Amino acid sequence: MTRTENMIRAAVIGASGYTGAELVRILSVHPTVQIAAMTADRKAGQALGDVFPHLATAADGLRLPPLVSLDEVQWDGIDVAFCGLPHGTTQEVVAALPERLKVVDLSADFRLSDTALYAQWYGHEHRAPALQTEAVYGLTELVRDAIAEARLVACPGCYPTSAQLPLVPLIEAGVIDADDIIVDAKSGVSGAGRAAKEASLFAEVAEGVHAYGVAKHRHAPEIEQGLSLAAKRPVTVNFTPHLMPMNRGILATIYVRLAGGARAADARAALAGRYDGEPFVRVVPEGVVPATRHVRGSNHCLIGVFDDRLPGRAIVLSVIDNLVKGASGQAVQNMNVGFGLDETAGLEQQPLFP
Amino acid sequence: MTRTENMIRAAVIGASGYTGAELVRILSVHPTVQIAAMTADRKAGQALGDVFPHLATAADGLRLPPLVSLDEVQWDGIDVAFCGLPHGTTQEVVAALPERLKVVDLSADFRLSDTALYAQWYGHEHRAPALQTEAVYGLTELVRDAIAEARLVACPGCYPTSAQLPLVPLIEAGVIDADDIIVDAKSGVSGAGRAAKEASLFAEVAEGVHAYGVAKHRHAPEIEQGLSLAAKRPVTVNFTPHLMPMNRGILATIYVRLAGGARAADARAALAGRYDGEPFVRVVPEGVVPATRHVRGSNHCLIGVFDDRLPGRAIVLSVIDNLVKGASGQAVQNMNVGFGLDETAGLEQQPLFP
Amino acid sequence: MTRTENMIRAAVIGASGYTGAELVRILSVHPTVQIAAMTADRKAGQALGDVFPHLATAADGLRLPPLVSLDEVQWDGIDVAFCGLPHGTTQEVVAALPERLKVVDLSADFRLSDTALYAQWYGHEHRAPALQTEAVYGLTELVRDAIAEARLVACPGCYPTSAQLPLVPLIEAGVIDADDIIVDAKSGVSGAGRAAKEASLFAEVAEGVHAYGVAKHRHAPEIEQGLSLAAKRPVTVNFTPHLMPMNRGILATIYVRLAGGARAADARAALAGRYDGEPFVRVVPEGVVPATRHVRGSNHCLIGVFDDRLPGRAIVLSVIDNLVKGASGQAVQNMNVGFGLDETAGLEQQPLFP
Amino acid sequence: MTRTENMIRAAVIGASGYTGAELVRILSVHPTVQIAAMTADRKAGQALGDVFPHLATAADGLRLPPLVSLDEVQWDGIDVAFCGLPHGTTQEVVAALPERLKVVDLSADFRLSDTALYAQWYGHEHRAPALQTEAVYGLTELVRDAIAEARLVACPGCYPTSAQLPLVPLIEAGVIDADDIIVDAKSGVSGAGRAAKEASLFAEVAEGVHAYGVAKHRHAPEIEQGLSLAAKRPVTVNFTPHLMPMNRGILATIYVRLAGGARAADARAALAGRYDGEPFVRVVPEGVVPATRHVRGSNHCLIGVFDDRLPGRAIVLSVIDNLVKGASGQAVQNMNVGFGLDETAGLEQQPLFP
Repeated sequence: MTRTENMIRAAVIGASGYTGAELVRILSVHPTVQIAAMTADRKAGQALGDVFPHLATAADGLRLPPLVSLDEVQWDGIDVAFCGLPHGTTQEVVAALPERLKVVDLSADFRLSDTALYAQWYGHEHRAPALQTEAVYGLTELVRDAIAEARLVACPGCYPTSAQLPLVPLIEAGVIDADDIIVDAKSGVSGAGRAAKEASLFAEVAEGVHAYGVAKHRHAPEIEQGLSLAAKRPVTVNFTPHLMPMNRGILATIYVRLAGGARAADARAALAGRYDGEPFVRVVPEGVVPATRHVRGSNHCLIGVFDDRLPGRAIVLSVIDNLVKGASGQAVQNMNVGFGLDETAGLEQQPLFP
Repeated sequence: MTRTENMIRAAVIGASGYTGAELVRILSVHPTVQIAAMTADRKAGQALGDVFPHLATAADGLRLPPLVSLDEVQWDGIDVAFCGLPHGTTQEVVAALPERLKVVDLSADFRLSDTALYAQWYGHEHRAPALQTEAVYGLTELVRDAIAEARLVACPGCYPTSAQLPLVPLIEAGVIDADDIIVDAKSGVSGAGRAAKEASLFAEVAEGVHAYGVAKHRHAPEIEQGLSLAAKRPVTVNFTPHLMPMNRGILATIYVRLAGGARAADARAALAGRYDGEPFVRVVPEGVVPATRHVRGSNHCLIGVFDDRLPGRAIVLSVIDNLVKGASGQAVQNMNVGFGLDETAGLEQQPLFP
Repeated sequence: MTRTENMIRAAVIGASGYTGAELVRILSVHPTVQIAAMTADRKAGQALGDVFPHLATAADGLRLPPLVSLDEVQWDGIDVAFCGLPHGTTQEVVAALPERLKVVDLSADFRLSDTALYAQWYGHEHRAPALQTEAVYGLTELVRDAIAEARLVACPGCYPTSAQLPLVPLIEAGVIDADDIIVDAKSGVSGAGRAAKEASLFAEVAEGVHAYGVAKHRHAPEIEQGLSLAAKRPVTVNFTPHLMPMNRGILATIYVRLAGGARAADARAALAGRYDGEPFVRVVPEGVVPATRHVRGSNHCLIGVFDDRLPGRAIVLSVIDNLVKGASGQAVQNMNVGFGLDETAGLEQQPLFP
Repeated sequence: MTRTENMIRAAVIGASGYTGAELVRILSVHPTVQIAAMTADRKAGQALGDVFPHLATAADGLRLPPLVSLDEVQWDGIDVAFCGLPHGTTQEVVAALPERLKVVDLSADFRLSDTALYAQWYGHEHRAPALQTEAVYGLTELVRDAIAEARLVACPGCYPTSAQLPLVPLIEAGVIDADDIIVDAKSGVSGAGRAAKEASLFAEVAEGVHAYGVAKHRHAPEIEQGLSLAAKRPVTVNFTPHLMPMNRGILATIYVRLAGGARAADARAALAGRYDGEPFVRVVPEGVVPATRHVRGSNHCLIGVFDDRLPGRAIVLSVIDNLVKGASGQAVQNMNVGFGLDETAGLEQQPLFP
């Protein structure tokens, strides 16, 4: 891959988590971005290949620097920081970064524009409320222009991405009733991160399925924020996540009441119109059922709509890879928008199946 | 295990499928039942251990007969026939069995009491309408007395079992609105049987999840039949099944509107009252989330209820092992009822986890 | 299940691990054993169903006591202790138990009869060398008489069980060369226990396979101890374990050099003769390949032998469920032997497939 | 992606199998190759996205043609044919192709240079013996120059790739004894293809492991052919494949006797020297254990070497993705060599983990 001297230089803050590794995987084939720094406080001094052996070859080929602690980073010459830290730690970190940097944050720290709502759901006061006012919620297809101008982009959560991509256009088009939305979501385990927790052990997850965070998951207010904006009034939704015995992928099965006499075909048409020409969002034809394995490893989102047996209702199916369109892929997409690059740069990889 | 001379002698018709194997597994530890014949037309002449190597030891120990074709069975001395044939083939087979036999059918052929509805959903006229009138729908906990008297028990489908066990008591108690029920169900792959189909290949199922039969699955009318009886009027439901990358288990995540000011606690109380003393159905405490792996290999059903974020709504979670309580276990339970045995005989095995 | 007043009363020490749960699962259907105490220091005060929801129904039905800390146990009236603690902690615990108790230990603490070898591999001096002299290594089929007399039985490790059951008779019969044995073993993840470790996370194990502990796993000296006894001289083996993306099961693929002109058929015959009449060990017919899923959840061991393409060599395949015959099942089997019970009591469950 | 007018035009024969889909995935990001035709006799007329929904987006973006039957292909203007048909059907198909075409064959039909050996293992006479004499066995790193000149490249099997990449240099360097090689190989299920077979069903593969083709797998003579060339005399090996519950990946655990007093470090040095500068083959440092998940989705091969506990022996671990370096990736790599392109073109994707 030819790399020019005018590469954008990126720092990956929190490179030892799955989203950090995924950023490196994606950026390693990005034609105009170079990884200039990677941080991981507890793994400082190690090579990336020690922490993620699957990236050892990429790290060598790209001459990636070793992992350092955050305070060791030389910010001179760095253009953009991807921040993949756990929620609650990011607000102060971002506030301390040089102001000239673009920041693409993958945590939950800047997603809720209402800091009181943040405090209610995350259990502590917001630590950078001024920054929050300038953060742009980075659901790329829906707010591309604002992202282009933003200094700080708050990338949406994985579940909220899978839910809002289909629901926002349907609400805006008046095709569905915003007051009767049930989001039954199914996610792979990588969404829980790499922390060593009993609940994420292979033997606790394989060969079974269960709901979790029932009626109290933190992605509910985030989804509601987006849908309320679309509906121009407060919207509450059911959001019920389930843990699947698989690594990657989210399927959102969304049960909606159609409005104004609409049918599934109308919903499909509204979505197809909204996403016409989009490289990553695809409305599948009538009768086709999206599966998470159709998007694995890619930045794609597939959306299908079916008429329900219940009159006046429809079933909307949406799939993404939680680590790509639901995290690191959308982050790179947002960076591309922010720097005026081809939006698909680094993201042209097709899904890996089987 | 001591076996008396007064054993009940059972035939397993269709022993080469997963439900057939599961019947043998269960009956092999049943204290008063002996397997006297096993049929599998395409595998006739083979030992059970050739078709299911995991049962070779049981077959030897119990001196199980070889697989024969159906027309080779000597019915003299046989007391009960379990019928695990594919749907559509069972009606004529059962009609041809000696009348003195008890029949426990695991297919879909006698589940719908309305033969017109059967014809509509299964694509052909019912071939034994007279038998249909005497068939009892065998959801054991709900119709135990009728099962005790029945000659022909139609065991419920796996999904309908998982949905009706929680929903029927809730409707009967007036705790929920029967007109706003959404059943999002997740099933292991064994529910699709052992037929060699591309859609059931490992590489087509692992590492992914998808819905199927959206708004047109044949278990929808079966669920509706049970709920309509409970509601004493026609009920239509949303039923959306999903294929999980796991062998066994069904989780039904059921979204309901509470009636008459009820809360989740009222629903939980109604269920706990209804299933008090039942050996296989258990209402879990507030806050506990049932998982399919908590019932794997057992005849148990666990049910939990949560208040929804949406006011006036609740989320009901129900889990079973599709091959046990959803098929062969409930079949044996029904046989136990039919012969006046201890209902738990042969079914005392605890779940296998991990 | 009828339970007499003359039940054997058992304590399960370390009931919060997978082997502890498996002991409860098995003992819950044992006709003459009652669980009188269960310990789990860090979970003391909790009900078993809080720690292992899949056992909540069993715990209720059997009126199991809550988990207590070890020092809370009232030993009066207890007949046998199963000890499922991590290695290194067991020696002192067992030394402190009342002498009249039978002890069935599932840890590695008493498996190596040479305490110097123990110190070398486990990194600390043996803490109960006197007890070690009376411990009997509990590979049931091979030392049944000694187990019947023993106060302290050290249950073999999971891998050593899978390797020694086929290899000891082959060495004793002179059919193979003890100096050229390669054991390539594949294990499910439950063998690593329930501790929260990054290496056991779902996302680190699913969709992949790798070797671990290469040339330095602690089960190597244990296997060598048994084979040396059989060969009546010191034997060294290759033992290479691999982690499989599955919950349960061990497959040992063993590469051996045949001795004295023997062929695979001779090896098969030697094994079949040695295990004739054994309820749990089965030599499969020529051409049949054992699979771990053929023994899942059961106390069975299946063994097959094939001629190699390399002249004078054979391939021996052995499968067990690591948590049953490789741990808790064999422990109960040993208890049965120790108390003169039917050896299959509590262990009659057939494999769970699929 | 900018595509020039001077693109190489490729046909994919047999595009409806997993290797066909993988070719499309890889070629879709190849900078100088364009897919001009795709065949699938039984799916002729369908769009690729109907057969492989994960490729629907790629098919649209690249304006891929629909699937056609083989005899519908217009060969004018096509430069190279990838042939991914089942073995036994390819010899006549390739013989009928225009002679000016480069052919990269993924089947087993041209891998064995000795047509008598082919007939013995594949059960029928070779149908294109003249073509066989010009076929080059395409293990790229080892025969790059011959591949550059070849019209017909026979891509190695997945298992043989994983075994020969480490073993050929070790034999050539005289570091190991070619007469004592045991290859215990573990493969994901995609290696069995997309045919609907009971043995490949999810429920028959998940949660278990087993060997297959013991001492009679067709990849044994292929491995032996390569090792015999390296040893300059006939070599026989043990090759024992195992089916893993995972989609992709092969781990070859190879047990070897060291020669001439060598140690693992010498073997590692010999391999590191041989593969110095290779973009896809990497010798991992001492103590590092390669895992299949470290190469998933990439064209990488990782090799590690460990001293055995058995004196004078070593353990060699080699991992590849069976569908990439074991099939379609190596095929593209060979095409790149054949057309004088950058060998990594289209193959720069890093592994997908988790």
